[in-house]
Amino acid sequence: MNDYQLIVIGAGPGGYTAALRAAKLGLRTAVVENREAGGTCLNRGCVPTKTLLHSSEVYHNAKNGAAIGVHTEDIRADIQEIFAYKRHISQTLSSGVESLLKGAKVPLLHGTAQITAPHTVTVTDGEGAGTYTADNILVATGSVPARPPIPGLDLPGVMTSDELLEGADHLYRSIIIIGGGVIGVEFATFYAELGCDVTIIEGLDRLMPTLDRELGQNLGLILKKQNVHIYTNSMVQNVEQSADGLTVHFTTKDVANAVTGEAVLCAIGRRPYCDGLFAEGLQPEMRRRSIQVNERYETSIPGVYAIGDVSSVIQLAHVAAAQGTACVEMLAGVENHTDMNVVPSCIYCRPEIAVVGMTDADAKAAGIPVKVGKCVMGGNARTLIVDPGRSFMKIVAHAETGEILGAHLMCPNSTDMISQISEAMANHMTVSQLLLAMRPHPTFEEALTEALADLQAKLEK
Amino acid sequence: MNDYQLIVIGAGPGGYTAALRAAKLGLRTAVVENREAGGTCLNRGCVPTKTLLHSSEVYHNAKNGAAIGVHTEDIRADIQEIFAYKRHISQTLSSGVESLLKGAKVPLLHGTAQITAPHTVTVTDGEGAGTYTADNILVATGSVPARPPIPGLDLPGVMTSDELLEGADHLYRSIIIIGGGVIGVEFATFYAELGCDVTIIEGLDRLMPTLDRELGQNLGLILKKQNVHIYTNSMVQNVEQSADGLTVHFTTKDVANAVTGEAVLCAIGRRPYCDGLFAEGLQPEMRRRSIQVNERYETSIPGVYAIGDVSSVIQLAHVAAAQGTACVEMLAGVENHTDMNVVPSCIYCRPEIAVVGMTDADAKAAGIPVKVGKCVMGGNARTLIVDPGRSFMKIVAHAETGEILGAHLMCPNSTDMISQISEAMANHMTVSQLLLAMRPHPTFEEALTEALADLQAKLEK
Repeated sequence: MNDYQLIVIGAGPGGYTAALRAAKLGLRTAVVENREAGGTCLNRGCVPTKTLLHSSEVYHNAKNGAAIGVHTEDIRADIQEIFAYKRHISQTLSSGVESLLKGAKVPLLHGTAQITAPHTVTVTDGEGAGTYTADNILVATGSVPARPPIPGLDLPGVMTSDELLEGADHLYRSIIIIGGGVIGVEFATFYAELGCDVTIIEGLDRLMPTLDRELGQNLGLILKKQNVHIYTNSMVQNVEQSADGLTVHFTTKDVANAVTGEAVLCAIGRRPYCDGLFAEGLQPEMRRRSIQVNERYETSIPGVYAIGDVSSVIQLAHVAAAQGTACVEMLAGVENHTDMNVVPSCIYCRPEIAVVGMTDADAKAAGIPVKVGKCVMGGNARTLIVDPGRSFMKIVAHAETGEILGAHLMCPNSTDMISQISEAMANHMTVSQLLLAMRPHPTFEEALTEALADLQAKLEK
Repeated sequence: MNDYQLIVIGAGPGGYTAALRAAKLGLRTAVVENREAGGTCLNRGCVPTKTLLHSSEVYHNAKNGAAIGVHTEDIRADIQEIFAYKRHISQTLSSGVESLLKGAKVPLLHGTAQITAPHTVTVTDGEGAGTYTADNILVATGSVPARPPIPGLDLPGVMTSDELLEGADHLYRSIIIIGGGVIGVEFATFYAELGCDVTIIEGLDRLMPTLDRELGQNLGLILKKQNVHIYTNSMVQNVEQSADGLTVHFTTKDVANAVTGEAVLCAIGRRPYCDGLFAEGLQPEMRRRSIQVNERYETSIPGVYAIGDVSSVIQLAHVAAAQGTACVEMLAGVENHTDMNVVPSCIYCRPEIAVVGMTDADAKAAGIPVKVGKCVMGGNARTLIVDPGRSFMKIVAHAETGEILGAHLMCPNSTDMISQISEAMANHMTVSQLLLAMRPHPTFEEALTEALADLQAKLEK
């Protein structure tokens, strides 16, 4: 008999969720982790950034409160305390994960794992050191920030999100962010709210170029109003130390340009992380830098599965958790309930963005006839009160059946509204079914009814 | 031919929504209103209170920001400016309603309406004065604050929400709120956040006694931590002017007690308003103080319909709007899409409360077998970050079919999450159907998945 029925490598949201589910289903399970429980998400990703953004929002709202009758001259954001609060939240949640594993009687083996033979994991450099056998091994090692081979990205003061989240002893006067994707715009929001001079350099024609066009364009306008400098269609050539700080040289449509700032954040994405995980002669098939898996999360090595950022096309914590649960349920012969084809995505800029499913451009490219319902929220009471910048909702439905195919929301609380649409998509519901619900007043979600009514009218034409 | 096909009396959320829908459906329509367009909701109800609560939240968050690295010694809430902002928001939305009516070519007749004969409305005391005939008349005159016959409630400084929302030239040092229902707890939240000494006196055994027991109990604990004094099971006897202010005498389980404060808010509910609306000899059948209507919103007078607070069992803006739309669609022979049996309710205390459908107590009383799923949100990342006080979600489902029957949410953004449940109830969906949706991380709505999973496990037992 093997030591365990399942060894999970990596205690991030994919790994720990899988391990807890496995234990609940009666599998003898262990988890190996060489850093903090909770992985990137809790320690160097989603949670720390949202914690920082909470502090910066409170600061920014009060500092700009005169219009709503709130005045302060001396308000001050203490950057060391803000990062200490971030650490406190991460540590609390990380301890929570450890407690959950302990409660489920899942050993958390500290150390670095290597798959040294079929069904065999060797752990080194930690208290959990040893060699363990398992019926199945689940790889959930996640991802790390990508660092492209641009000259100067190794200079002191040039950081990825990992280093930036370590914190600094003062608030940067200025920061240059390379990459206008999710990570870039969230950090831009944080630093801009604290009054730091922020520049974003993005290679494509708008911020968040993978999302609905209007989202990135609108966010660009909002950030510019906050004095964020945005260069799109711009390719970074190199970074160099200059007298005034770090100078980033880039070309905008072949015209050379440069900006200088105190700090540089490289936020061009993340790469799957499985460095050194597989012993020689035990390499699995890869898909570029990702581990290749089939729809059952099987790698090319029998008994070795992979989920989350290390193997997934979509790198998101909730996808990793859902895949981890689904993989374990398959191993245990239990039915899984989550629809893996409906994946929401959230961006914590101001106002928040939340999306799921197709844009109308996606539909066009796929040859699917759609209608788009829209509500611009200038007349929505809570939007008017909170004054978050131009807010809107777009909902996409099949032109013939009325089935909901996607939603693109940019407004306060959108990250807590998107599942109304995911729920509908996962159950193949139509616009008129969603219109059955009386949405309450005064809420942001009232605008969903307006967008749906607009869509219904277009479908009936 | 009558002057109009439809005259709507009252330009609140019920009336203006009905008028706009009627115009869209091709009915020649007019609206009569003797105050501002938008009615109680925009001018003396939902919207003003949410505006005040936005200011107080920004103030309170910054004032208590030390734990998250935000410091201010001199922060100041200017009560006159806060009320000016409230007026600005109301006026903006009220003008918006006027513009919508204008754009829809619906005359807004200023003045006080009386139904003087069948199909006849006489308007006096305003620019819209005159006598108009209509095929149908829709009464949407709403409600006004109730003032019970308690001695001393007519003293200066004793206010209903109407007077309180007029604003004062300074922040009350202390306020006593008679009534721990929705209106009472929202004002208590506002004044407590601004640092005012607040007392609530409630006749029943907990705050918000009509809601799930745990909501009112939890809110009571949270408000007490903010130094709000709460007296439950307490009946007010009288109010009198004393040397230090206004003294409210009350009995708590037959023991006499008294509190003294600068201001008193009487928040014991609202009564339907149709004073003087019907000429002598044209009185409709009443149900206590409400106009009696059937399921087609018909009063006992042919051609006279009523919707909203003046006739509805549930007094909420979104119910009025939904009834107005449904009534007009019936008149126009158009199908209505809203499920009138699924009515959400929102309370903007901290954290917010949003509910829909049955509690387990309701189910027990009705003899319906149910299971309740619950998630206490101490481990939810965003809840931990924002630290809003004890937050939780309860979801009720039929024990045999798994159909969702209700939800009781107390957490930030719950008012924008409740329609996930309403949507499910209106479409008779089950717990496992709602579990199909992958809810995003890190959000408050992740807790819905946890509550649903807890519920599913109980259903499967």
